[in-house]
Amino acid sequence: MNSYVVIMAGGSGERFWPLSRMRKPKQLLHLTSPDLSMIEEAIARVEPLIPRERILIITSEVLRQPIINALPNLPAENVIAEPAKRNTAPCLALACSVIEQREGGDALMAVLTADHFIGNAKSFRKDIAIALHYAQDNDALVTMGIPPTRPETGYGYIHVAESIAEDEVSSVDSFKEKPTFEIAREYVLSGRYLWNSGMFFWRTHTLRDVMIDVLPEVGNRIAEMTTHKSHGDEVGLGSLFAALPDISIDYGVMERAKNVFVVPASFPWDDVGSWDALERMQPLDADRNVVQGATLVMETTGSVVVNAHSGSHIVTTIGLEDVVVVVTDDATMVCMKDRTQDVKKIVTALRAEGRDDIL
Amino acid sequence: MNSYVVIMAGGSGERFWPLSRMRKPKQLLHLTSPDLSMIEEAIARVEPLIPRERILIITSEVLRQPIINALPNLPAENVIAEPAKRNTAPCLALACSVIEQREGGDALMAVLTADHFIGNAKSFRKDIAIALHYAQDNDALVTMGIPPTRPETGYGYIHVAESIAEDEVSSVDSFKEKPTFEIAREYVLSGRYLWNSGMFFWRTHTLRDVMIDVLPEVGNRIAEMTTHKSHGDEVGLGSLFAALPDISIDYGVMERAKNVFVVPASFPWDDVGSWDALERMQPLDADRNVVQGATLVMETTGSVVVNAHSGSHIVTTIGLEDVVVVVTDDATMVCMKDRTQDVKKIVTALRAEGRDDIL
Repeated sequence: MNSYVVIMAGGSGERFWPLSRMRKPKQLLHLTSPDLSMIEEAIARVEPLIPRERILIITSEVLRQPIINALPNLPAENVIAEPAKRNTAPCLALACSVIEQREGGDALMAVLTADHFIGNAKSFRKDIAIALHYAQDNDALVTMGIPPTRPETGYGYIHVAESIAEDEVSSVDSFKEKPTFEIAREYVLSGRYLWNSGMFFWRTHTLRDVMIDVLPEVGNRIAEMTTHKSHGDEVGLGSLFAALPDISIDYGVMERAKNVFVVPASFPWDDVGSWDALERMQPLDADRNVVQGATLVMETTGSVVVNAHSGSHIVTTIGLEDVVVVVTDDATMVCMKDRTQDVKKIVTALRAEGRDDIL
Repeated sequence: MNSYVVIMAGGSGERFWPLSRMRKPKQLLHLTSPDLSMIEEAIARVEPLIPRERILIITSEVLRQPIINALPNLPAENVIAEPAKRNTAPCLALACSVIEQREGGDALMAVLTADHFIGNAKSFRKDIAIALHYAQDNDALVTMGIPPTRPETGYGYIHVAESIAEDEVSSVDSFKEKPTFEIAREYVLSGRYLWNSGMFFWRTHTLRDVMIDVLPEVGNRIAEMTTHKSHGDEVGLGSLFAALPDISIDYGVMERAKNVFVVPASFPWDDVGSWDALERMQPLDADRNVVQGATLVMETTGSVVVNAHSGSHIVTTIGLEDVVVVVTDDATMVCMKDRTQDVKKIVTALRAEGRDDIL
């Protein structure tokens, strides 16, 4: 049975403004590698396992062309725009339909992300192979869980009934919404919880059957999607898709399904959620700073200083501690490092002022 | 007897980098007024008292043309470049010589600064009139002292023997170098000390006679300067000037002279020494920020955010406290507000790297 990779790449990445823009979100930035954008890294990581002909990107209409341009070596028809902005359950139903149409039947499907940091590609591929193998043999929905390293309140958690062991697949007891700090600490201490990474593995037939069972308003439309696709009926597909509910795969399918398993990740992982994430994955200078571009950073500690100006421009600091400074051609952003989550507030405020020219 | 104003404007103003540059130092910036540069303000302030024909600017060779350009309404011949970089004693000896040559004899001379904040021009002119009047009647060297408002360690102090009263001239006991914090506090509490503002008032004959007495290596050359000037012998003047000692008027003349008096300033004053000074003289927003140019400042307090970019560029901040952010076309500078004194370290480092293009 052939395996496909589906990379979800529709995110807008507002937290990396002013470097990220509506048409150049996080997944198109070189945040984790000087040479490759995050989506290029995502493809390079998985390609030794699955050829790029079977790597699909699902994104938004506005990002389809920028992503095609950014990935000249990927077949353009593998970059698929959602006909309307829906959540991950309709998005993956569409991917399921596209794969079944191409394959003329059942196939294995690995759902990966475009904008996360993966610290060890070899271990990552090993874990994918374990997950796909288990999904194929057991008609199961398999997810990848990240062993938590801190009581993070920004992620969902996966509760595992048994004890968790590397290279072993565990049965999922339940999915937990983002917890409070107290609860997150209990989760981490218990050793029975993993972070929900948003990566999934299943046979297309399994996903379709489970969706028909637990989310019929989406699952029952997959065959129709395939029909529209095979007739090239984009309008029909568009109106079908627009009528689907806005529901996530986690909430709509994984939490409701029975045959759900998890592989604990054996690689370093980070969701690269905001500017402060850079210090967890980029080399630091002697004063624990992340420094990029033409800069002069003096008596500065624990800071992130990024000069992405395309012209002749220097970014200098002195006497800073735990500050983020990002400079582009048309915008500068400065915030305390523990406030990087709030960069999206700047984006929201600029949008309210009609400043789409710099968003 | 005619009165002349001599504005000393040779400072390089490195602490206001990246807005200040070698050819555009502090005195040419709009730091204290949106409409006028500091040197324009200095002239506008004193012009109701003394016509601009008798206002002289003494500056460096490199700044002569930029200052002439910045002051189209001042006679260009009133902008005088020091033939060599010396300290204030030779500089004011030269000014004395220029004035005596123009006047054909004795005149009154008010030495003012180009780059200080003066909060009330009317009071300022009243104090100048008091000082000039006293200098003329008493053949005295008169200085203007600023009543201290904090135990500042960055200024010199003037010790007054008697008690200090507004609109009254006091005899100076001694000049004190920059004190430690403890000593500065004693000075302020005693009520017998004033800050040395670097403003002086005297008859040219008085200055010349006192200089001949207490600083003969400069005072004895004033007549020669006048001779060179009257023959248009710039080379002769240059080599004479280059041979003069590098000594300040405070140390070389004021501290050694006997007939020294001080007028306590009746106006708000600030030396505008570094970026943090802006908050003492510019309107603050509700969160105590000074904000200039195209900016979006969110949840930011006590900060100075200056966007001096000439193109389309926005400077945004969120979650900052007591930070200075300055953006120009070719350089960005970010520092903690209590480290603004150290901006000159950035300039020094850039100079060491040969980056004169941005200095």
